[in-house]
Amino acid sequence: MDGAMPECSHLAKLLAEARSSLDVDAIDALIAGVLAAPPEIGASWHALVAEPTPPELADALEARKVTLAASHHDGVQPEDFARLPRTARLKLLRERLAADGLAGFIIPRADEHQGEYVPLCGQRLAWLTGFTGSAGMAVVLKERAAIFVDGRYTLQAGAQVDGQAFEIHHLIDEPPATWLATAAAKGDIIGYDPWLHTPQDVERLKAGVERAGATLRAVEQNPLDQVWEGRPAAPLAPVFAQPETFAGESAADKRARIGKVLVENGAASAVLTMPESIAWLLNIRGGDVPHTPLPLSFAVAKADGAVTLFIDRRKFVPGLDRHLGNAVTIEAPDRLGAALDLLAKEGRVQVDPASAASWVFDRLGAAGAQIHRAADPCMLPKACKNAVELAGTREAHRRDGAAVTRFLAWLAGEAPKGGLREIAASDRLEAFRKEGQYFRDLSFPTISGAGSNGAIVHYRASPETEKALEPGTLYLLDSGAQYLDGTTDITRTIAIGTPSAEMRENFTRVLKGHIALATARFPKGTTGTQLDGFARRALWQKGLDYDHGTGHGVGSYLSVHEGPQRISKAPNAQPLLPGMIVSNEPGYYKTGAYGIRIENLIVVQPAGEADERETYCFETITLAPIDRTLVARDLLDRDEAAWFDAYHARVRATIGPLVDDETGAWLEQATAPIS
Amino acid sequence: MDGAMPECSHLAKLLAEARSSLDVDAIDALIAGVLAAPPEIGASWHALVAEPTPPELADALEARKVTLAASHHDGVQPEDFARLPRTARLKLLRERLAADGLAGFIIPRADEHQGEYVPLCGQRLAWLTGFTGSAGMAVVLKERAAIFVDGRYTLQAGAQVDGQAFEIHHLIDEPPATWLATAAAKGDIIGYDPWLHTPQDVERLKAGVERAGATLRAVEQNPLDQVWEGRPAAPLAPVFAQPETFAGESAADKRARIGKVLVENGAASAVLTMPESIAWLLNIRGGDVPHTPLPLSFAVAKADGAVTLFIDRRKFVPGLDRHLGNAVTIEAPDRLGAALDLLAKEGRVQVDPASAASWVFDRLGAAGAQIHRAADPCMLPKACKNAVELAGTREAHRRDGAAVTRFLAWLAGEAPKGGLREIAASDRLEAFRKEGQYFRDLSFPTISGAGSNGAIVHYRASPETEKALEPGTLYLLDSGAQYLDGTTDITRTIAIGTPSAEMRENFTRVLKGHIALATARFPKGTTGTQLDGFARRALWQKGLDYDHGTGHGVGSYLSVHEGPQRISKAPNAQPLLPGMIVSNEPGYYKTGAYGIRIENLIVVQPAGEADERETYCFETITLAPIDRTLVARDLLDRDEAAWFDAYHARVRATIGPLVDDETGAWLEQATAPIS
Repeated sequence: MDGAMPECSHLAKLLAEARSSLDVDAIDALIAGVLAAPPEIGASWHALVAEPTPPELADALEARKVTLAASHHDGVQPEDFARLPRTARLKLLRERLAADGLAGFIIPRADEHQGEYVPLCGQRLAWLTGFTGSAGMAVVLKERAAIFVDGRYTLQAGAQVDGQAFEIHHLIDEPPATWLATAAAKGDIIGYDPWLHTPQDVERLKAGVERAGATLRAVEQNPLDQVWEGRPAAPLAPVFAQPETFAGESAADKRARIGKVLVENGAASAVLTMPESIAWLLNIRGGDVPHTPLPLSFAVAKADGAVTLFIDRRKFVPGLDRHLGNAVTIEAPDRLGAALDLLAKEGRVQVDPASAASWVFDRLGAAGAQIHRAADPCMLPKACKNAVELAGTREAHRRDGAAVTRFLAWLAGEAPKGGLREIAASDRLEAFRKEGQYFRDLSFPTISGAGSNGAIVHYRASPETEKALEPGTLYLLDSGAQYLDGTTDITRTIAIGTPSAEMRENFTRVLKGHIALATARFPKGTTGTQLDGFARRALWQKGLDYDHGTGHGVGSYLSVHEGPQRISKAPNAQPLLPGMIVSNEPGYYKTGAYGIRIENLIVVQPAGEADERETYCFETITLAPIDRTLVARDLLDRDEAAWFDAYHARVRATIGPLVDDETGAWLEQATAPIS
Repeated sequence: MDGAMPECSHLAKLLAEARSSLDVDAIDALIAGVLAAPPEIGASWHALVAEPTPPELADALEARKVTLAASHHDGVQPEDFARLPRTARLKLLRERLAADGLAGFIIPRADEHQGEYVPLCGQRLAWLTGFTGSAGMAVVLKERAAIFVDGRYTLQAGAQVDGQAFEIHHLIDEPPATWLATAAAKGDIIGYDPWLHTPQDVERLKAGVERAGATLRAVEQNPLDQVWEGRPAAPLAPVFAQPETFAGESAADKRARIGKVLVENGAASAVLTMPESIAWLLNIRGGDVPHTPLPLSFAVAKADGAVTLFIDRRKFVPGLDRHLGNAVTIEAPDRLGAALDLLAKEGRVQVDPASAASWVFDRLGAAGAQIHRAADPCMLPKACKNAVELAGTREAHRRDGAAVTRFLAWLAGEAPKGGLREIAASDRLEAFRKEGQYFRDLSFPTISGAGSNGAIVHYRASPETEKALEPGTLYLLDSGAQYLDGTTDITRTIAIGTPSAEMRENFTRVLKGHIALATARFPKGTTGTQLDGFARRALWQKGLDYDHGTGHGVGSYLSVHEGPQRISKAPNAQPLLPGMIVSNEPGYYKTGAYGIRIENLIVVQPAGEADERETYCFETITLAPIDRTLVARDLLDRDEAAWFDAYHARVRATIGPLVDDETGAWLEQATAPIS
């Protein structure tokens, strides 16, 4: 207490001197949001206080942040669970449910935006159960509770979740709806938060609950939030403009374009709930969630091109209002409901049933709106990159390829010494990447898996699990970065020492699949589902396969996983279109032994010849050597070997000039022809 | 009039002598149904009158049929349109609509069973518009009318439909719902017959109609049926038992199996509206529609294995009741509605929203039933053939292969003489097939296309369109047969004289696709959508493609097109399972020049080796030479050439012993190795 007053008055003085519009209370509130944002935002938030930020003020802000960080919120870290154990949390929730007249409650992993990354304040599933995987759902009943995770997370859930309190079930094979059909009792009222489920989810859950003779009810207040004392604030990371030199199209043009789409759909407006769509539409970027430069927000786009953005404007850096312009109205997030009520009177409202919260549909329905269910109108235009975005991403990939190549050369010298471990290796790669121009962040947590850890598809190294890179094993490294001009994602599998014949055969089958996709030509209208088998055929012929998709969409300084396109077994109706970036990442995993994955990003391009059909092909934009010591030459046919050598020649020619001499020398031999 | 009475009294006398339960009036009613069935049923209907049928009675029945046929119903043949032209029909319908207070009416091609073949009495679209294609829809408004057909039928619709009366639109690109959204007027009431649309269809149409501010209304009586004077009767073809020696599983076991599925689904009953499902379930076959041995009927299956069959029992041959047994209750078709009302009280009712008429849902809904929307429970078990069915179909394919091989050998001798035309050629093949044991019918109208006619994917030769098989052209022949023990479907493309280099290259690319699919191995869970690209890749690499699916399911003495599996671009979620029969039929079509298609039937089989994954492969069961003069050997890799030669060796070994010496000699050289 003694130190607090001087800190505050000192800060107040500096704020006044810098002519900041914020007082100390406002700074404290801002810092609560900053602490709830990923640490990668660094000191960028100082711009929200005063720009430029005088050094003394910057120091005072950081000091204040340290002070407030000590009065820690109650979150999802192991140390938080020491303060309030999982069982206590479950008990608190059950008491609240009883008070609310609910026999049960459903807790999904999703937040209000249904996105891949969830801010701290939305980590309800982790807070309750300890499970931190990227997909899952829990159901709490009076006597029983269960968590549902998919095959990727069975082991992790077993380690993180208290098996006494929660049954662990398979999300796909025994989904919550099915479990509820027998676990709920007749007459039970089971609650759910309509902000956290899509209408499709609700339908499924409703069917299950009703089979038990119970009732599913949307709650107005999330009971978990009510018992979550010390719940982190909503994140407050600065929102910047993404300049047209990187975006390639002005926000005004994009707004007009989306307005036209709405007119074509007979809709007067569209509700946008995916922050990446809003970031694309308005050419803005933020930092509210890890690894994806998103400002969490909602928006309404009108047929005339006007947009209302529902966002905490404390996140705006100076000048952002001017960037957004007069056609963009800013409202506080809690004004969304009232705005939806008005929309209902202005004509059909387009909403995406695959990504928007059930709450949006309920509210619009109650207001009497005519709802047009259709995909988020920004998704497809966002996925089809323009020439400026593609040029930017090619640049970013050269920089990224140079960093990866420097790493691979370093690894070739370091690994034989022995003792190199997974985290040290990925730290080294990150350090190389950070030297690159426009580097902002990793695009996802690096997967650095040595030996048998490489066989765990969504592995994340920790001091407890990490292994050393040992001779005779494979090392799998899947990583990527966010540059202002593009997002990267690359996987290489490297032989440490001499690989076995089996490793080489399986690597080569994965490579054959990678090449089959990279060289595919296909007519306009073809979907990723139709091409997925090309990447698997060589494995299938030996009775092998891999349990993940072959390719996901990739954004332009945005999400490293984006739709609507996808190359996978799962049916996907979206044709691949020129400008779409997707990954090409077949793999093979031998549990307990090794993992193999070869991943490049590829861009859909017109095939450009006078074909009978309009035909597309792929341009590979990722540039880094593929370990030639793992290739069984006799398993490749002539065309495949020619592709491999041509790719390596391109890597050499492009990356060679960007790296130091020592790396260059290594690159020379790493890309020598195999045929 | 003078001749009628003696004919009748003579017939009455013969009926009495044969102890038939039918009198002359009943015979006349029966013959109305016989005349409305496909001519292929021949004299088999005599068994419905008396069995055995004394020859004199048989003669009298045929004479009576000729008499009644003369007082012809008003149908969909060109001569019918001479009696009542299309414009008169449209005018009659519009008058009826006005009287019923309807501003418009929707006329689909589908009948009450939503099947591929529609009996004469269900040919409403053809009666109204003259269009006889297998897919389409018409909408009649007060001032405008439109017909919607897909790309296959644009030309045909242009020729058959009166362009003054009907606008012709593309069924997919500008569907009826979209057209209605602008063509209907505010306040209009647009009618539809809920018997002829699935609920999904209705949803789509409703959305379109409501966009126009109009209302979609289900009619109780189809106004078209009311103005269709002389509408053919419902077909009455004999219903026979399919013996267990061919079916491989008793109907009782199948009923018990389906009952168990219903229990698992929590359903008390299922409404079956697809006649092929009912035929499979009860081991019965009929002849109400062309080329598929179906008895048109509805059924309700109960969880305890009991079935109620809604069918005109005049179609039963003697002994069929005994075959069906006590657990199968027979009711008249018009009792279905009352039965649905009762079902509603007995628990959840399973209905297939993809194949059952909207009427079924409406009726169940009005009765307060809890509806479980799920696929027809017979579809999947029917698709997975048992060992007896597979043995039967292999037998049928040997017979069919021998007939096709005899034809090909005959053609090799005949074509060079010149002047052979499409219809004469397909007639010859049909004659060869008819000599085979268990032959019952063709499985679809033969596609016999010479030269540019081969490029018309759904071509049907007529005296006006047929061409001669000329040197330097390709001849495409797609045909199949119904045998009691199996259904066949085969396409061969034959070079008449010397083919061009381009023809050989494109044929070889089609062959590469055919081989890629035939040799594919794939893990359990793989769908046809995932494999479709294998058959196209070699064409795609040259910017070529074909606009049809690669493979359809095939029944066992049932529909030549069956689901739920399918190998095509269209998303299909059904994994391929052992015992499923599918076609493998890539093609290439050069409009105005030639068509290429190579089709064999293939069966999904366990790969049978100790794989890491449970893996399946295909067994090719069609056996007839593929024209080796069309193969560009240098475009095949070693494995492909080896497959080709191994296939031909199997054809030679299996078919050789079944054909005459002359054919055998031809077969020897037609199957000589290419490598």
